[in-house]
Formats: sequence, structure tokens, C-alpha cells
Amino acid sequence: MKSLVVDAQWDPRAEYDVSDAERESKKAMNASQVWRDPELRVTERERPTPEGDEVLVRVRYAGICGSDVSMLETDEDGYVHYSAYLRLPNVTGHEFVGEVVETGDDAQLFEEGDLVTAEVTDYCGRCNMCRQGFTGHCENFEQLGFTIPGAFAEYAAVPEKLCWDVSALRDAYETDDEALRAAATIEPSTITYHGLFARAEGILPGDYHVYHGAGPIGLTGMNVSRAAGAGEVIAFEPSDERREVARTLGFEHVYNPIEDDPVETIASVTDGEGADVHVETAGAVSQTYPAIEDSLAEGANVVHISNAASDPDIALRKYQGNSAQLYGSEGHTGQQVYPRVIRLMAAGRLDNLPIVTSTFDLENADDAIRQASERVDGKVLIEI
Amino acid sequence: MKSLVVDAQWDPRAEYDVSDAERESKKAMNASQVWRDPELRVTERERPTPEGDEVLVRVRYAGICGSDVSMLETDEDGYVHYSAYLRLPNVTGHEFVGEVVETGDDAQLFEEGDLVTAEVTDYCGRCNMCRQGFTGHCENFEQLGFTIPGAFAEYAAVPEKLCWDVSALRDAYETDDEALRAAATIEPSTITYHGLFARAEGILPGDYHVYHGAGPIGLTGMNVSRAAGAGEVIAFEPSDERREVARTLGFEHVYNPIEDDPVETIASVTDGEGADVHVETAGAVSQTYPAIEDSLAEGANVVHISNAASDPDIALRKYQGNSAQLYGSEGHTGQQVYPRVIRLMAAGRLDNLPIVTSTFDLENADDAIRQASERVDGKVLIEI
Amino acid sequence: MKSLVVDAQWDPRAEYDVSDAERESKKAMNASQVWRDPELRVTERERPTPEGDEVLVRVRYAGICGSDVSMLETDEDGYVHYSAYLRLPNVTGHEFVGEVVETGDDAQLFEEGDLVTAEVTDYCGRCNMCRQGFTGHCENFEQLGFTIPGAFAEYAAVPEKLCWDVSALRDAYETDDEALRAAATIEPSTITYHGLFARAEGILPGDYHVYHGAGPIGLTGMNVSRAAGAGEVIAFEPSDERREVARTLGFEHVYNPIEDDPVETIASVTDGEGADVHVETAGAVSQTYPAIEDSLAEGANVVHISNAASDPDIALRKYQGNSAQLYGSEGHTGQQVYPRVIRLMAAGRLDNLPIVTSTFDLENADDAIRQASERVDGKVLIEI
Amino acid sequence: MKSLVVDAQWDPRAEYDVSDAERESKKAMNASQVWRDPELRVTERERPTPEGDEVLVRVRYAGICGSDVSMLETDEDGYVHYSAYLRLPNVTGHEFVGEVVETGDDAQLFEEGDLVTAEVTDYCGRCNMCRQGFTGHCENFEQLGFTIPGAFAEYAAVPEKLCWDVSALRDAYETDDEALRAAATIEPSTITYHGLFARAEGILPGDYHVYHGAGPIGLTGMNVSRAAGAGEVIAFEPSDERREVARTLGFEHVYNPIEDDPVETIASVTDGEGADVHVETAGAVSQTYPAIEDSLAEGANVVHISNAASDPDIALRKYQGNSAQLYGSEGHTGQQVYPRVIRLMAAGRLDNLPIVTSTFDLENADDAIRQASERVDGKVLIEI
Repeated sequence: MKSLVVDAQWDPRAEYDVSDAERESKKAMNASQVWRDPELRVTERERPTPEGDEVLVRVRYAGICGSDVSMLETDEDGYVHYSAYLRLPNVTGHEFVGEVVETGDDAQLFEEGDLVTAEVTDYCGRCNMCRQGFTGHCENFEQLGFTIPGAFAEYAAVPEKLCWDVSALRDAYETDDEALRAAATIEPSTITYHGLFARAEGILPGDYHVYHGAGPIGLTGMNVSRAAGAGEVIAFEPSDERREVARTLGFEHVYNPIEDDPVETIASVTDGEGADVHVETAGAVSQTYPAIEDSLAEGANVVHISNAASDPDIALRKYQGNSAQLYGSEGHTGQQVYPRVIRLMAAGRLDNLPIVTSTFDLENADDAIRQASERVDGKVLIEI
Repeated sequence: MKSLVVDAQWDPRAEYDVSDAERESKKAMNASQVWRDPELRVTERERPTPEGDEVLVRVRYAGICGSDVSMLETDEDGYVHYSAYLRLPNVTGHEFVGEVVETGDDAQLFEEGDLVTAEVTDYCGRCNMCRQGFTGHCENFEQLGFTIPGAFAEYAAVPEKLCWDVSALRDAYETDDEALRAAATIEPSTITYHGLFARAEGILPGDYHVYHGAGPIGLTGMNVSRAAGAGEVIAFEPSDERREVARTLGFEHVYNPIEDDPVETIASVTDGEGADVHVETAGAVSQTYPAIEDSLAEGANVVHISNAASDPDIALRKYQGNSAQLYGSEGHTGQQVYPRVIRLMAAGRLDNLPIVTSTFDLENADDAIRQASERVDGKVLIEI
Repeated sequence: MKSLVVDAQWDPRAEYDVSDAERESKKAMNASQVWRDPELRVTERERPTPEGDEVLVRVRYAGICGSDVSMLETDEDGYVHYSAYLRLPNVTGHEFVGEVVETGDDAQLFEEGDLVTAEVTDYCGRCNMCRQGFTGHCENFEQLGFTIPGAFAEYAAVPEKLCWDVSALRDAYETDDEALRAAATIEPSTITYHGLFARAEGILPGDYHVYHGAGPIGLTGMNVSRAAGAGEVIAFEPSDERREVARTLGFEHVYNPIEDDPVETIASVTDGEGADVHVETAGAVSQTYPAIEDSLAEGANVVHISNAASDPDIALRKYQGNSAQLYGSEGHTGQQVYPRVIRLMAAGRLDNLPIVTSTFDLENADDAIRQASERVDGKVLIEI
Repeated sequence: MKSLVVDAQWDPRAEYDVSDAERESKKAMNASQVWRDPELRVTERERPTPEGDEVLVRVRYAGICGSDVSMLETDEDGYVHYSAYLRLPNVTGHEFVGEVVETGDDAQLFEEGDLVTAEVTDYCGRCNMCRQGFTGHCENFEQLGFTIPGAFAEYAAVPEKLCWDVSALRDAYETDDEALRAAATIEPSTITYHGLFARAEGILPGDYHVYHGAGPIGLTGMNVSRAAGAGEVIAFEPSDERREVARTLGFEHVYNPIEDDPVETIASVTDGEGADVHVETAGAVSQTYPAIEDSLAEGANVVHISNAASDPDIALRKYQGNSAQLYGSEGHTGQQVYPRVIRLMAAGRLDNLPIVTSTFDLENADDAIRQASERVDGKVLIEI
């Protein structure tokens, strides 16, 4: 089958302390310390056979995530930017939709013909984290498209417990193609849903939400916030193109933080009450946190989603003076996140199609990645 | 000023133990045990003068609540149906919008010209309930339109802490008249918002909500649920006219429980998962609870809102087997309920205008009450 | 190895609709409809071999639960009382402690010599319940001592993900024997911990807790409530012996509900404030619920734990008037329940030893069951 | 009556922008920018007369808080250290117990002879914060002992809604004097109770709590944590004397952070699991936060209580990787905090008497303040 394969040199930096487990498994804990001179090939690979508890999915669309880009971008020494888990060579890609074409002997949840998307983190269900309900931080995890083969390929074998049926989206869209493209954006939507509704507590319908950063996660997040009952969604994003995508989605309060001071703007839009929910999806924490902390509503929830390059100063006094709290959030694994996002989409409340601004064939995957690396798109999809 | 005044005979039933406090204050704890032979007059009354912490509101629209009807309906002995707090004679009416035309000496929150609606329960802020945050169950409460003069009048004097600015609704509607009529439906909307988001815990965006009863509270509730991110809203209502109002609001899953078995219907719409949220707004508990308990999703929240005429059997085993819980809810007093509902309305997410099916002048208030007593309308308004 | 084995006749009642799955698996969904003429034998059985993800435990103490008794008690037609899941013949017993003496090939969490207790419900981790975090309601569950071999035996093979290390209890007790006996009471303690802290929300340190029923679950629950910071623990229990056990534990407010009216007593102890937490551990719901509903503090949490023989009327108006809620709770599976209970015990805050009122050898298991069936003990243990 | 009165010069720093409200009311928002050359006098003052909603309290014991000290300590320019609200001259002191000796005309909750303590913040109940339930951040607040006369005096007039009956403590202590001294430590205990149980969510009985700083707030907090069901309480405190007080309270895990590395120590005590609850009561944020962030258990709650002199860097990545959250907390105003702390004390679960290490007469109040400024005591009391 045709696949996009990423490979690189295993060449740990001198100062990085490679563990035995990493050396044996070639599963780097911090890719940017180990993997050098990455390259991408579109190549033929053997079609996988599903294990007993897996299903084989014929992938139809797969979205490009910032991580897919950053594992191909390098620093001056040739090390990849991506700083989390990575085993190479690997078929990357983890935001996808496809059709079940084969089921493992022990599969119970799906049958051939089902349309599915999938969670990213495969958890063991048995370790000390999993058995306490912390499956998102499984001690024996693997990640589709990072440490095990992902979705930039014609077929992907996926543990069925990670898959979720998305056929209900067909009712929400006029064509199957639209439903498929929408379904490929479920995964990024779950990242903010998880942060707002599985991690944070006490977010109320009617709350004012502010997104600091309107890239693919911010844009799908704004849509999630609106679908979930935000009283107003405000966004700050320096890219002209991305602000335009936000406006196409129907958002009125979309600003360039370089031109429009966030603190003043939030005060104006919220009539001086401040934001009840701040979502950091920019990573530019030295700019965003001072603005966040000067526009906290009483009881505000700050949800940190992005991979920040540095650690910001935190004005603790302002969290005290406004009864505010700060939640760290990553991933989307956990109770009911996927099925709830899918329901919102099936009900026509969460329409991400306008976020999809570019589509490429798998053959032209390198062009797709290059396009995504410009960071001006809403979402770049690969049609497979 | 012109006012609708309700009066009746203070004639406690022989078996009712009238307290000294009730006798002195003429504030019956259970009106149906005390007040007999009610009558309604539209009459001239002296325009009230606002106390220091009050504002004087020139009322523009006021909605008729079931309680306004039931304090005029009687049993065979002539006692009113309404079974909660009532002091007569009184200007009734508590769902209203109007303009501030005068402010008390000590008023800080409003000024002349502000457009406001108001909460119903005036709390003392000092008793043992209030100082623990339970203002909705204040030990010294009064209620606008029940124990102190309400809004079926040209003017109402209202403690300013109960008032909320609704001028932002003008952005959501094309005409001022529409904004005013919409604002008059805020109060009933807050009843379900309070039940779902101040009383219950853990309701998630994307949850399936079922309303058992689509009268004025159920219809505004369905709208609140949709605005707040319900994945689907299902309703059961025997009145043809009210089901039609629900459909006009854009709800697809609206059924007559006499024709369509609720358990089967819910199973079908939810694909066998059951309802995450059940809202009892019918009062017909011997019919609704068996259906609720046979269609509980795992972790379901049952929110009881209505005044039930009897106490249903509860199948505890089903609450255990589905990790379900049952919340009793009444009123709307409490943290952030009014401002959040107003924001949802101002953002165009919560449009109750199609629920308003009849409008009368204050002169014809008796016709208005008679119309409301038919229980086929969405909401009957009085224009003042 | 020596084992207590329960067997009975598979003889479904005429009116019971046996499913194919039940017939094939001999796993009855409702034992009381299927299993007849039970008998108990202490017999030799082959020592089990642990599967890959299992550990073999040399059992040291195992407690007798009400369910162990009720699967041997019969109605006039000879059917067992126990009304939940049961596959026979089986080694029963599920409240135990023992030492790991062998580990499966794939075991990661334990090694030989570890002292462990275990959860009861084995969940698949893959079904639609499990993957949403609802492992306690796994669709493919088995139960130790009910549907798969349990702990009234010299050895038990247990999935390691269900086991929890209890060696820290050795610091809390002077002798190993005491630590072992205490550890055998962890399982019943987790039932109320789960109800109060995994199911209910908003229970505060300093709350007043009332136990309706002080059998083994109620007694361990009272201890859990005290360890968890209850401001006062009040209990109602008709058995003189069990009230005496409660007093031995140091509880002052222990009453016979037949002699001391619960409503008046609660009002007196709580100075009129009512109980913040009601725990129904009696099953006598027609008596307990009226008392509960007349002694609700504002915001009260009612946690239903027992197997009720009938469905009580519920006075919904009182839940509304006191902002109260009712939670159904069963089992103990879920986030952090076992490790937190073990920590409380290891810290010396939760001492159940005085609850253990009788101990028998495995040889005399039938005497032990007979003793437990008197329902006057705190907890009856079998030493193995 | 005899009183301790603090006075200073109103001399705003050149760079401080004094508002009109501050100038008129002499209520500085940031005392350290305005008040210079403070002095303390024990002097005669007129005994206050209670307003209608006030009670007059004959003070018996009053504790010295860090704020009472810091409003007398100065920088090199003579400005006081205390950086929050202060109106001078004023009778300071806000941690107290006394007897009601007179009640205002409108008082309902208390009568002469009642033994009471009080909350510090008087809230209006009417402003936009109060009416949303945020009474702790009332826009028109006053503070006993800061902006209005406090408790270092023979008599204090206190709004009755702030007072709480503590007579139940007489059951928990052998002598009245002990009960009174214990009651004087309720106020500091409520600060951490508020942080842990009104601000943070999801703290479970059995959690591991770590206190970074064991001064008066940390010591009473450790006691609160233990009473509330902590599985273990660990403390880091550089003062030898204060560590000794902690040990006297019965805490085993009390360390000098300069000698015992907090990260290693926490790992050791918690068997590698990390702390579920971190409470920052030191103010030394550049030292404490790195240690906190390297010992977060999965799902950890970090509660910030202290007045930090600077803003620490926050390692957001670690909050994400451990599903942790950070709550800012100040004060104690809010739902049920005082009554629950009082109940814990009345039940004998929260005994702060060993924390009281010095007691002075009001005459010697300057010695008392001087002693407290040494920062080696648990709690210094003034007997009045």
C-alpha cells in the first residue's frame, strides 16, 4: 500500500541521557534530542493485518498536525523540532477518517463498512495509571502516527477500543465527501474539548471564552466553545489568513494581538467583566500570560493547551484576587470526549469544514507538509 | 397606575395549622390551605416609590406563569390551587421587562433608562441560609408577584440587587419590541438553567437531553439546553399545540407520549445509549418516572423541576445500575444564572420569540389569564 | 488445595426468560431466578495457575459478605435469595488478603511476597463502557467469588490489575496478624468510599453523616466517614449487637430506630441543621426514606448503597425545598478508590479491627456462614 | 475601653497614583504605598455601640496574624510592609473569640451570652460581586481590623452575619479557657480550609498533602488537612521552632527544606507517587514552585495561599504531563467554611491548642507583636 514514511538518524545528542528502554525500542522520549536529518518518502509498504483486537481501516482523509510538521523541521544541527515521543521509521498521521474493511478475530465493537475515526493514544488498561482511570498517561502507551504506524497510508490497523463510529455525520452533511472531511477534523477538536470539559471544572454555558492563538487547534477549539454554549468567543491571532478563516466561521471578535491590545479588547467586548475562560493555543506564553492575567473574570479558568517553548512568570496575586485557576491539559484521552464531540458534529452544531483550507493527494504529501509548515492554513488535509 | 390585583378570602381550612407569623403577616406558606374565592381586578393603584436600594421600573411586558393561573383556579371548596407562598391582595406577575425610571437614594447598579428584568426572590443576605450562600432559601424571603407587589402593573419597585440589565438583547433582535418580548421570557428560562447548571453537576456538551413536558418551562428549557450545547433535545408533550410550538423552534424530536412510547423512542433516537439528562417539567410523575428510569444513560442526571402532585415510586436499583442521580430544583436564585442566560440570549443563541404565542393588553388581563389556563400556548404575554 | 465450593441446581423458574448467553455460560444474571437448592462443601480443588496477567495469591483471611450468605439462603421453592450475577459451581468469597506466591508471565505490578487485596469486578478495558471510563459497568465483566473463582480457598488466581498492595498496613498495626485481618476489611470499606467520594459530589469535611443501617457495610462506612473528616457520624441500627460494635468503634450517636425516632434524633444531634449526608445501608427503604427526607440539610447528599427489596415513594418536593440530591451507588470500581482507602488505613485513621467479631477456620466455613446469617456480627472472617 | 491602636502618616509615595476614593476614605488599596512611620499604642477608646445588624462582643482572646506584624514593619523609607487594604488609625486584630454582650435592634442570629468568632470581610450583599455569590470579593467590602475597628480591644462591634457560634467547643475541651484559646485559632484555620475545599475541587480523603511553609497558616492548615482526611501530611519549614511545633501536633513528616531536598523527600514518603495536594504557605515561591512541580502526583492540586513577594516561573509542561492545576486562594469568605471548621473542632478532630506558643496581655501588646515578628512561634495570642 502507498504510505508516507518518515525516517531519520538515531543520533542522540552528547548531553542527552538515553535510557536503555529508549535504545532498545528506538522510542525516543524527546525526539528533538535524538532524531537527526529527517526525511519523508511516499513509498510502498506492506498492508498491515489487524491483530485480534484491531480493525483495519481504509483511510480516506488524514489531517496534518503541527507535530507532523515539526518532526520534519530541524534546528541548525539537524535535530528535529518535535520534542515528544517518536519511533522511526514510521508512517505518521493521526487525524483521520476511514472505513473498516477487516476486523480482528476478537473485535466486538465494529464491523466491515463502519466509518470511523480514532483516538491517538493506545493505553494498556492494566498499568498503575490506567487502572486508576488515567489512561491518557498510560505507562505503556503507544501513539498512532508517532510510535506505531499511523494514518498517512492507504490502510491503518487500529485497536478497536480507540475507534469511534462517525457515520452519524452523514446526516449533518449533504455529501459523503463533506462528512468525511469533517470527520477528519474530529481529533483536533477533541484537544480543546478535553481541556475545557474533562480537565477544567465549572465552565458554564454563557461564559466568555478567549482563544490566544487561532491555528488549527485554536480554530477547532473556537468552534467547540461555540457549540458548547459560550456566550461569546474572542480570538487573538497574528496571521491574517487564520483570522480570515475565523471570520469565515462566523466569529466576529477576531483580533491581531499586535494591533489590538488584548487586555483592552477583552475589557471592551466583555463590558469590563473579563473572560471566564482563557485557552492558550499559541505557545507564545511570554506574550499571552500577561494579557490573560489582566483580563481574568472572577472565577476564571485558564486552560493551557499549547507546547510552550518557555516557562512564563505567573502573577499568582491575580489568580488569588480573581479566584482563578490554571489547568494543564494535553491530549484527548478520557471519559466521553470523542463521543460527545461526534454528537455535536452530527447535530450540526460543530461544523469545521470552513477550517479545511487545503487538500492534497497522498502522492503530494511533501507539498502538503510544506504548505502546513507555512502556518497560514486552517487545516491541511491529505486525501487518500 | 393601572394594575392587575388578585385578592381572596383569608379562610384557613379547619385542618390547617395557621402559624402566628402567617396570621400576622397574611403571608400564607401554602396558599391552597388558606386563600378562598380568589378574584382578579384590573384597577388603579398608587404608583410605588422606590426605597433606597430599589429602582422603579416602568414595566413593558410581563409573562403569565402557571402560578399566576393556579392562584385563580380553585377546587370544589373554592380554595386556590396554588400551593406555595402568597400574600393577598397583591399585584401578581413576576416574568417581566421594563425600563428604570427612578432610582432609590442608595442604588448603585442602575440608572434611569436602563432596560432590566429581575429575579423573583428577594433575599435578606443576612440570615443563616443567606450567609452560607443559600440565598434561594433565605429565611426572610419575599417574592415579587407573590408576597410583595409584582409586575402586572405599569410600575414596579424592585430591589436593585435582583435586577439585571438586558439592553444587550437589542443587538440580537431587529426591533426594540422583539428585544423586549424576548427579555420577558428570561425568567422562565432561568428555571431550567438553574436546574441543569447550578444544581446538577457534570452535564457535558453533547449530552442527550429529554424534556418530559413542553409547557412554558419545558419549551424555554429545550431552548436553554440547545443553546448550552445539548447533542440532541427530545421532548414528550401531550398537547398538540405545544408540540407544534416546539417544532416551530426547530426541534425535530418532539413526541406525544400517549402515542409514542418514551422508552422506545429515546432508545431509537439515542441509538440505544439512553438519555444523559432527563428534565421533569410535566408534574405527571407517575407516568414520567418509569419512563425516565428505563432510559437512563450511564451517569445520567435526572433534574426534577415541576410541582408534582404526588410522590412517585423510585426504582433505586436503576439509579445504582446506571450510576445515575436525581436532583431536586426550584427557582433560579444563585450564582451567575441570570447573567449567563442573558448572555446566551444576547449572543443570539437562545431565541424564545417563537414561544410567545399570545399577547394581551393589561386591560384584558382576565382574558390573558383565561387563555393561559387553557395550557395550549407557549407563553402568553401582557403588554403594559 | 482446600476450598469452599458453592453449587446448586440450574433450574430456571418457568416465568424467567433465560438468555442464550446465560444458558451457554451458566452465568445467571439474576441468581434467584435460576439457582435452586444450593449447597456448600469444603473440598479439595486443583490449585489454579495464574494466566499471563494474573498473580497467584495465597489467601490468609477472607470476610463473609451478605451476598455469600444470601446465595445459600433460599425461598420456599428452594431458590437462592441472591439476586445478581452468579455462575456455579464456584469458589465464593471476595473480601480477602493474601500473599503473592507466583506471577503470570506478563505481570508487571507485583512480585512474590507482596501482600495484596483485590477489587471484585474484572473489567475488559475494551468494551463501550470501559473505554468511556465506566469500568464498573463493563459489558464483559466477571466477578471474583461470583462468576469466577474467589477467595474462600487456599489460593486464588487474580488479574493483577485488580490487586493493590497493602503492606503499608504493617506500619499501622503491631502484629502481622492484625494487619492481615484489617486488610480483609478493605473491600467492604470501599463500597461506601465509592458512594461518598466517587459517586456523590460536594461532600465537605465537617459534614454531618447519618448511616441508616450498621451492618458490615454500615459499620465500615461509619469508619470511612470519620476517617474522611465527617463532623459527626450518626447511626440507626435495630440490632443490639451491632449498635454495640458501633460504640466499641468509638461512635457516640448510635440509636435503635425503633426506640429513637430518627427525625427527632437527627434534629437534636445536629442542632436542627439536618444531615448533610445520608447513607442508606439498611435496605429497609420504606422506613428509611421518610426519615431521610425529613432530615435533609440544605444541599444534602443521599447516597443509596443497599439492595432494596422494594421501591420507596420519594418526596420530590423535599429534595427541591432543600436543594438535595440522590445518588445510586454500587460496587467500588473506579478511580483511586482502593489506594485511597488503603492509605487511610495505613495512616492509622481507619481501623476496622473492632468490627471483626468472629473468626473461623476454612474447615468450619459452614459454621462461619451460619454465624454471619444471624446478622448480629460486625464482620465474620475465615482464616485460611 | 482598652485598645491597641495602630496609626501612621498618610504620605503616598510619589509614584503611587492615589485614587479619589482612597484620598477621601483614607482606605489605602496598597498600604505599603501610602502609610509611613507606623506606631502602635495601647490606649483608651470609646466602647462601640452596635448598629442594628451588629452585635457587641466582649473579646477574650485575639491572635496575631502576619498582617498585624507587617503593618508595623517598615522598609528603609519608613513605609509599612503590609501591601493590602488599610485605613488608619484603627484598632487592629481579626482572629478572635468573645462573648456577645449586646445586640443591635435588628439582630436575629445571636443573643447575649453567646460565644462567637467572626469572619473578617464584611460584604454588602448587593454589589455585582455579592449578588453573584462572590461575597469574598465584594466591591464595597470592609475588613475587621484593617479598614474598620477590630479585635485587639475589650469590645468589638461586629455585623452579626459575620459571627459564628463556637459554644460547641466547650464539649471538646476540658476548660473554658482552652475552648476560648482554641476558638481564637479558627480564623487562620479557615484560610486553608477555604483554599482546599471551597476553591480547589476533587481533593479526596486519603490524598497526600504537602505544606510548603509551617508558620501559623501552615500549621493550622496541616491540622485542617489531617482532620479532613489526608492520607499523609508532609511539611517543609526552615524554622527549627516551628518544625518542633509541627512535631508536637503529632506530625511525623516535618522537614527542613534546606537540609532535606523536598523532591526526594516527597518521593520517598509517597513511595514515588508524588503529592496530590501542594499548599504554598511560605511565600518563597522561587524555592517552592520548582519543588512542587517536580513532585506532582497525577491530577495534583496546587493551592496558592501565601502573599508571594515575586512571580515564579511556572513549568506549564509539568502541569500538562501530570493533569495538574493551580488555584489562587485568599481569605475565607464563602459557603460553609466557618461552620464546617467549627464542627471539626467541636468534634475533637481539629485541635490547634499546641500551636499556641505564647500569650500576652493586651497591656503588653507591643511585646506580643515583637514576639510574633520573630516568626518562630506557632501562634501568639493576646488575652483581653
